[in-house]
Amino acid sequence: MSSESAHGRQVNFGPGPAALPTSVLEEASKGILNFQGTGIGISEISHRSKEFVAYLENLKSLIREQLDVPESHAIMFTQGGGSAQFSAVAMNMLSRYRLLHPNAKAEDIKMDYVVTGRWSEKAAEEARRLGGGSVNVVVDSRKYSATGKLFDNIPPHEKSVYNFSPDPALICYCENETVDGVEFSHEPTSPAAFPFDLLPDAKLLPLVADYSSSFMCRTIPRLADHAIIFAGAQKNVGPAGLTILIVRKDCIVDVDAAVKFGASPVPLTLSYKTLFDTNSLYNTPPVFSMYVTGLVLEHLKALGGMPYFEELNRKKFTAVYEVVKKGAQQGTFQLKVKEGSESWMNVVFDIPDEAAKKRFLDDAKKNGLLNLAGHRLVGGIRVSLYNAITLEQTLQLVDYCNKFLEDELKSKAQ
Amino acid sequence: MSSESAHGRQVNFGPGPAALPTSVLEEASKGILNFQGTGIGISEISHRSKEFVAYLENLKSLIREQLDVPESHAIMFTQGGGSAQFSAVAMNMLSRYRLLHPNAKAEDIKMDYVVTGRWSEKAAEEARRLGGGSVNVVVDSRKYSATGKLFDNIPPHEKSVYNFSPDPALICYCENETVDGVEFSHEPTSPAAFPFDLLPDAKLLPLVADYSSSFMCRTIPRLADHAIIFAGAQKNVGPAGLTILIVRKDCIVDVDAAVKFGASPVPLTLSYKTLFDTNSLYNTPPVFSMYVTGLVLEHLKALGGMPYFEELNRKKFTAVYEVVKKGAQQGTFQLKVKEGSESWMNVVFDIPDEAAKKRFLDDAKKNGLLNLAGHRLVGGIRVSLYNAITLEQTLQLVDYCNKFLEDELKSKAQ
Repeated sequence: MSSESAHGRQVNFGPGPAALPTSVLEEASKGILNFQGTGIGISEISHRSKEFVAYLENLKSLIREQLDVPESHAIMFTQGGGSAQFSAVAMNMLSRYRLLHPNAKAEDIKMDYVVTGRWSEKAAEEARRLGGGSVNVVVDSRKYSATGKLFDNIPPHEKSVYNFSPDPALICYCENETVDGVEFSHEPTSPAAFPFDLLPDAKLLPLVADYSSSFMCRTIPRLADHAIIFAGAQKNVGPAGLTILIVRKDCIVDVDAAVKFGASPVPLTLSYKTLFDTNSLYNTPPVFSMYVTGLVLEHLKALGGMPYFEELNRKKFTAVYEVVKKGAQQGTFQLKVKEGSESWMNVVFDIPDEAAKKRFLDDAKKNGLLNLAGHRLVGGIRVSLYNAITLEQTLQLVDYCNKFLEDELKSKAQ
Repeated sequence: MSSESAHGRQVNFGPGPAALPTSVLEEASKGILNFQGTGIGISEISHRSKEFVAYLENLKSLIREQLDVPESHAIMFTQGGGSAQFSAVAMNMLSRYRLLHPNAKAEDIKMDYVVTGRWSEKAAEEARRLGGGSVNVVVDSRKYSATGKLFDNIPPHEKSVYNFSPDPALICYCENETVDGVEFSHEPTSPAAFPFDLLPDAKLLPLVADYSSSFMCRTIPRLADHAIIFAGAQKNVGPAGLTILIVRKDCIVDVDAAVKFGASPVPLTLSYKTLFDTNSLYNTPPVFSMYVTGLVLEHLKALGGMPYFEELNRKKFTAVYEVVKKGAQQGTFQLKVKEGSESWMNVVFDIPDEAAKKRFLDDAKKNGLLNLAGHRLVGGIRVSLYNAITLEQTLQLVDYCNKFLEDELKSKAQ
């Protein structure tokens, strides 16, 4: 097994910033010196130049086409990642609610949060900090774990479990929990699917999804029913510093007009209306990150778009999960996520024997397989399988795991 | 005169995103594939990896050393550019004021803005939008222009002109107005110097400076007296997407504690305390922009740091300004900024004859001298002379201007 590829690159299973396709980076290494023959590098070009504005329009088209985003929804770009969106989502949706219900009292306004891991928990915390309504935890998945303390599952798909408010300002969930390795299933009949059928009745659902770590790794179920989908670029589609937004147009509201009905003023760079009215060019955008993201999206399209990546990512996940389950049966590995709730993008498991875990990580590194340690809050092992990880690289890891499991068995037998 | 250099690069006099040193971009084009021999490209590396954290520490040192930032001030990094800082500055400083004056009423809290161009005007507008205090326009420089409507000057250095509040929550100014080409002089005795001597008495001045377009082009006068200095990277030091902050530590306050005294909650990614407590790693930072900024700062240091660039930028500005004045005497060019108030970084002038202006811009482009058109709000010509523009490139432009002026004279004489 060769650990070396072009440019001395190793295999990076890190959780984000994450691996990008080598061919894209080769192209970017030219564009950084001279973008499209303009004589100016991409990091140096005006965001208002005709070349860049055309690039931006194409970037939007690449997302719209591949995810089948309807015209009811705008595609916008900003900075600050998911964390800034935790604030922006609450502030914009509270402003929208105030405009729809000018006489509402703050204490009667509900912000619904589905909590299935560290990121959705953080989102709920930020809504609580910002106030302007009260946070209703629709469900906390820890209640459904064996110990009552672990984010290890998607809660049972039952009306008595998901406590939605009748008319909330927003309903927020995190599609894939990167730290915990828990994800809603995309099989509509799976008990771990997002409970679309249990949502309150509303023509324009205030449904918000954090897709930061699963954006464009496959199609988005019921995309058109969402009010807002947001994602940091740095997992599946580009370098850190870029946030992608898909916002239904009724959620792009005049935040200043909402102030007289009791909404808090929204910092201008967090207002969706500012972004929409200026085609995401209110202030200087993260030009380089947008450029590389454009290259990645062209690359995804050329390979076959979402159907291709859904199939590829299924194969990758299945191959890794198979060896993880085998390791668990043998007693070397330990599963950490309930069956059916596992993330395709972040396979999280443990190696309870500390010496064995160290061997696993150290030898992986020697074999050019990097960044397999779990998140600092949960420990263990995490294999991130974002789009840029190839099937070949995945099978390299599977081979490595198989060999590691064999060696462990042998050493125990001695 | 050759317009072609390595990689087909042209001379980019654009106002930002702006030119970066070719040698830096050559290095970056390697780092994007493999950062420091890690086998992982810089856009793909974890912001919590030991390699990146070391890089971040060095980045801080490069700023601290070269600008002589005292230990009383923290150096931090964030996203969102100057526009996000317009909000952050007001929100953090209002929180600080509330903690210092728990019984203050909103209407008694003053936010002082020195308005000398489009950017300081925008900053004041954002403070007005966010509320929490009333904006006091210390001075509006348009009052001191010939027409009463132009941002073409630094106002007279007199107590009767600068109407500072006795105890404001903040005093904000923009050191260099990129659009209008107006800048405070760095000669302490110049009438266009910032009026430090007229500021209210305070041991810990709440003085905030927007250095977005003049950061690290020379030393910062009285840096240690500032509460906050902020700058987008995309002019003098790096690619767009990165904001650099120098914040005196008494201005890093517990914004949540200030809420009970009447302050508005601050979105977490805009809170200086969040950034400080996490070493700017609360959320994923714009890793690539930080990397290139690090390379640029190493490059500045290697060439001789701020003394070298002060001298270089003085020469560049002087050479361009000389030919602009010559053109004005000849009647071809028109000066737009009052003598002594001119920006070193953005030389703004006009060519009143529209046909001549078109010829000037078109022929410049043919000669590989790009992006000389003025800002869309003011028109005319703007020559941005950020650090990466070399003296040789500046003299290329000066030669071009001299030739253009000769040709205009000749064609008039015919």
